[in-house]
This record gives sequence, structure tokens and C-alpha cells, in this order.
Amino acid sequence: MTSTHPSPPITPQQYGVGARLTLSVYDSDYVRIILDALEQADTARLTVKTDDVSTFVGGTESDILRFLRDVITATAASGAHLSASILLSRGCPGELQCALPPGVAALGADPVRLDPAGVDAAAHWSLYPLLDEGAGGDHMDAIYAAIEQANTTGVFTGSEHFATRLDGDLSEVLETVANAWIGVGRTVQHVTTHVTLSINSPTRR
Amino acid sequence: MTSTHPSPPITPQQYGVGARLTLSVYDSDYVRIILDALEQADTARLTVKTDDVSTFVGGTESDILRFLRDVITATAASGAHLSASILLSRGCPGELQCALPPGVAALGADPVRLDPAGVDAAAHWSLYPLLDEGAGGDHMDAIYAAIEQANTTGVFTGSEHFATRLDGDLSEVLETVANAWIGVGRTVQHVTTHVTLSINSPTRR
Repeated sequence: MTSTHPSPPITPQQYGVGARLTLSVYDSDYVRIILDALEQADTARLTVKTDDVSTFVGGTESDILRFLRDVITATAASGAHLSASILLSRGCPGELQCALPPGVAALGADPVRLDPAGVDAAAHWSLYPLLDEGAGGDHMDAIYAAIEQANTTGVFTGSEHFATRLDGDLSEVLETVANAWIGVGRTVQHVTTHVTLSINSPTRR
Repeated sequence: MTSTHPSPPITPQQYGVGARLTLSVYDSDYVRIILDALEQADTARLTVKTDDVSTFVGGTESDILRFLRDVITATAASGAHLSASILLSRGCPGELQCALPPGVAALGADPVRLDPAGVDAAAHWSLYPLLDEGAGGDHMDAIYAAIEQANTTGVFTGSEHFATRLDGDLSEVLETVANAWIGVGRTVQHVTTHVTLSINSPTRR
């Protein structure tokens, strides 16, 4: 008698959950500052690969966001002005081609909760639900719902062309961005979000 | 007798053609370097508004791209390592809400042509056609077609998770990014693209 085995559940890495981070330090001592910050961060359950443009981080949503929070917080502790450009993506693993075909059941995830970083951040944030014919809905509906949700967290501070402005503790800003991305990802397979953070700016508005 | 006037053609600004730029200079003298570069750039036909996170640039595709090329080239002339995080958007003007409803006829534009900058750039690039139910097609088809086109320009150098890598003269890299965005924009109303550039990096691969 042969037994049938259910297929194993898909993992976040197989689903293409990951981030790209470009961390820019406006200081001539940037090499030391960035290397020190990266050394302190816990990469135990993550795939981390750095090149000359950005750093790829693969893993679960919580582990990725904790890594981003820790690296940026450690960099900010130098006192230098910094910007962080972050791309979060889910639902389209692989490189040149999506390794998952469209129409795979969306893989949900729990909301991310981060302890306060003690670092003030200003951010411009954009969210992209990548819908296809037959997926139903309107991409702006999902974006408006996410902005409305962000509005309840206390970090929403305004709207700019092509971006929503967030101000607050770095952890709250990252939570807001990540949880909107995760929230839309419950029903849309391929969702990306981009956020540019500014920390220790001499020209805070 | 009353005459009927055709409605005036929609302008790029009304259609929401614009960019956001975060220019990061890894040098303690960054304020002077960035201000010098911005002062030299021609803003005659553009709307330019800078805050502590990024700079908004509104105008025609050609004027915007020339401005971005000029500001980045002037910054690179300092010799400092820099990164530029650029968002290009079309088809969704306004701030919190799109001021254009979905289903407006897509506004085409001529491809952008830029004189060589004489500056080597490495880039990670992502393109987002924001389709809705009824728009037809598959968002990845448009992305694959754009990558194939980029492949013919000589600046395509590889694929990373969530991004396409481009290497070459800054102008060629920006042309490739802009012309894919403009090309998809001929049939899709709301199209955004994000590119992170690295210039004068001590760790070029």
C-alpha cells in the first residue's frame, strides 16, 4: 500500500520573502561605521549577501525586520546623518524570472512587532500590490486601506507626491511599512514596498 | 452659434509625471557637495521641492532625466562615494489620492536621449506596472519585455533578487530605466520604477 504525503508547506524563502537595503552614511568614516553596525547584527536565521549597490536579506518577515532595525539603529548610534533605502518583496522569488507562477495561494504572515529603537526616523513610503488580470480589485484600494491603517498608528504625518510620509521611532515606522506589506500580501501574491528613511538629518523639518 | 472646443491635451504635470531623488554622499563635507551640485543644475522648466528625506521633481520625462543626470554627475565630480535612490512615477498625480481616476487614456512620451555623463554607475533597478482588473495582461510580461529591451542596450549585467543589475555610463543607465518606464506607460496608466545607483564605490565588483 502506498501512502500519500501532503506537500510540505511553502517556506518564506521559497515564497520569495526578502529585502534589499542600501545604507548610506554621510560621513567620511562610513566604512568603519557600516561594518561595525553589520557585525553587531544577528544573522543566524537569515541569508545576507552584500554587493556594491545593496544588501539582500532573506528569511521570515520578523527576522528580516529585526535585522533592518538593528543595523540601522547601530549605524544611527554613530551620530552621523544617514539614509536607508529599503525594498521589501514577497510572492516573486528568483532572479530574472519569478520562480513561482502567478496564482499561487498567497502566503500570510503574522504582523511584525519590534521593540522601540530609541531612534527618530523620517520616511517616504510607497506600496505596490502587483495585480494581474483575474486577480480582482483595484491596486489603489489596497494602497488607500494601508494608508488608512498607517494613520491609526500615529506615525502617518502627511502625503507627498508618490509617497506617504511617516515620522516616529524607527521601529514604529518599520512596523507600519512591514505590516501594510504583509496585510496586502494576505490576498495579493506579489507585493513590494519601498521606503526611504532619513535619520540624524541636520535639516529635520 | 456656440462652438465646441476640444479639451486641451493633458500635460505631463497633470498626468503626474515626476521623480523623487534621495542623493546620499558618503563624505563629511556632504552639505557643500550636494548644494554645489543642485546650484549648477537647470531647473527652468521643472518643479523642484526638497525636504529632509528626498527631492520631488515634476516636469516632462526628458527635463526630469536631464536634471537627475546633471545633479548626480556634478555630485560624482567631487570624487566622493555616493548613492542615489530614484523613484519615477506616471499616471497617478496628487498626494494622498490619485487625482486621475483609473482608465484615463495612457499618455505616451518620446524616449529619453541623454549625452554621455562620463561617470560609471552600478544600479539595482525594479519596474512596477500597476494593473487593475480589466486592464488585461500580466504584470510580469511587461517587466520581462523591459528587461529584454534593457539587455539590448549593453548596460544589463545581471539579475539579483527583486532587481535587475545595470552597469555603464550614468546616462545609459538612466536612459534604460526611463525608457522602460515610458515604454510600459504607453499602455499602462500607473507605472513606477525604482533604481538605486552606486557611484565611486571603493568596492566595485
